[in-house]
Amino acid sequence: MSSNLAPWRSQLSRALHRNRSLPNARYFQLATVKKNGRPANRTVVFRGFFQETNQLQIVTDSRSEKVAEIQHQPWGEICWYFPKTREQFRLTGQLTLVGKHHLTLQNARQGAWQNLSETGKKQFLWPHPKKERCLNQEAFAPEVADDNQPVDNFCLVLFKPSLVDILQLKGEPQNRYLYTLQGDGDWLKKEVNP
Amino acid sequence: MSSNLAPWRSQLSRALHRNRSLPNARYFQLATVKKNGRPANRTVVFRGFFQETNQLQIVTDSRSEKVAEIQHQPWGEICWYFPKTREQFRLTGQLTLVGKHHLTLQNARQGAWQNLSETGKKQFLWPHPKKERCLNQEAFAPEVADDNQPVDNFCLVLFKPSLVDILQLKGEPQNRYLYTLQGDGDWLKKEVNP
Repeated sequence: MSSNLAPWRSQLSRALHRNRSLPNARYFQLATVKKNGRPANRTVVFRGFFQETNQLQIVTDSRSEKVAEIQHQPWGEICWYFPKTREQFRLTGQLTLVGKHHLTLQNARQGAWQNLSETGKKQFLWPHPKKERCLNQEAFAPEVADDNQPVDNFCLVLFKPSLVDILQLKGEPQNRYLYTLQGDGDWLKKEVNP
Repeated sequence: MSSNLAPWRSQLSRALHRNRSLPNARYFQLATVKKNGRPANRTVVFRGFFQETNQLQIVTDSRSEKVAEIQHQPWGEICWYFPKTREQFRLTGQLTLVGKHHLTLQNARQGAWQNLSETGKKQFLWPHPKKERCLNQEAFAPEVADDNQPVDNFCLVLFKPSLVDILQLKGEPQNRYLYTLQGDGDWLKKEVNP
């Protein structure tokens, strides 16, 4: 199915490979819009691509604010900076929430849960994020969750890019490429000024 | 004037100091909202605080898309991740554009221009960002700009935070603090669940 891979995927793979010594090269910043029309922005972990598609996977707690934001405005923008190669990928696209009640993607949600580390799984059993600090230390050391079945508040999020803006700061001058998804599913590549 | 420093400033100073070996620890991601109500997100360079205030300085080209976005929606959110100490600062606040026609802050704009490196200054004379790539290499090697007088399209941007969310991933469990600006100018600190 590699023919379905978007042409920007090879540049992204190369960046991931060349920055592989940095754990934070697998983190990016996801911007969404709040109900009041103002932006929100946070660091999330890249969890690979969804099957043979060009959709990026992240996971979140359904109690976190981004879930309500995405329900209200499904468009998001990812900013992904690679320190070693000094490249920035900006990906504009739409987000899909795959929570407990999603009708068709429960296998994908279960797979994402299974791929989480033990520590990662436990965080979904912690007290409500951003509420007043719970002083009971035991609340942060929950029993090991079921390795196979995601907890109710575990949410897989898929990000489907339709515009990818790659800026390479190392060039002399810098290089910049825009990839735009066309109506027929093809990607149009354009070289632009940095 | 150090009594005017917001209480989160000491935590930020410490993070900057402890991550000082990483050039990218001085970069953060700024989210804004486009006219169509969708988010935008990009990496920018921290240019220090504006005088004795708690306002962060960045600089931009007035031809860049974020300028129009900020004119339309002045609220932004900064996400600043420090890789070495594994801390995330999310700052919610309002942006002020200090371009060529700003009435009162031309001294600040000039100072920001003077603080730019030679290479940084030259980029403001490059061909229009994100337009079709200019193939004339000389266009990217402009004459040295005036060191003292900013070019017309040089824009200083001030970011005034009113909410600061600090997440320390290294804790066991993680620590999280919210600082909220009150009507009287004081900051309220609250410890919350990570």
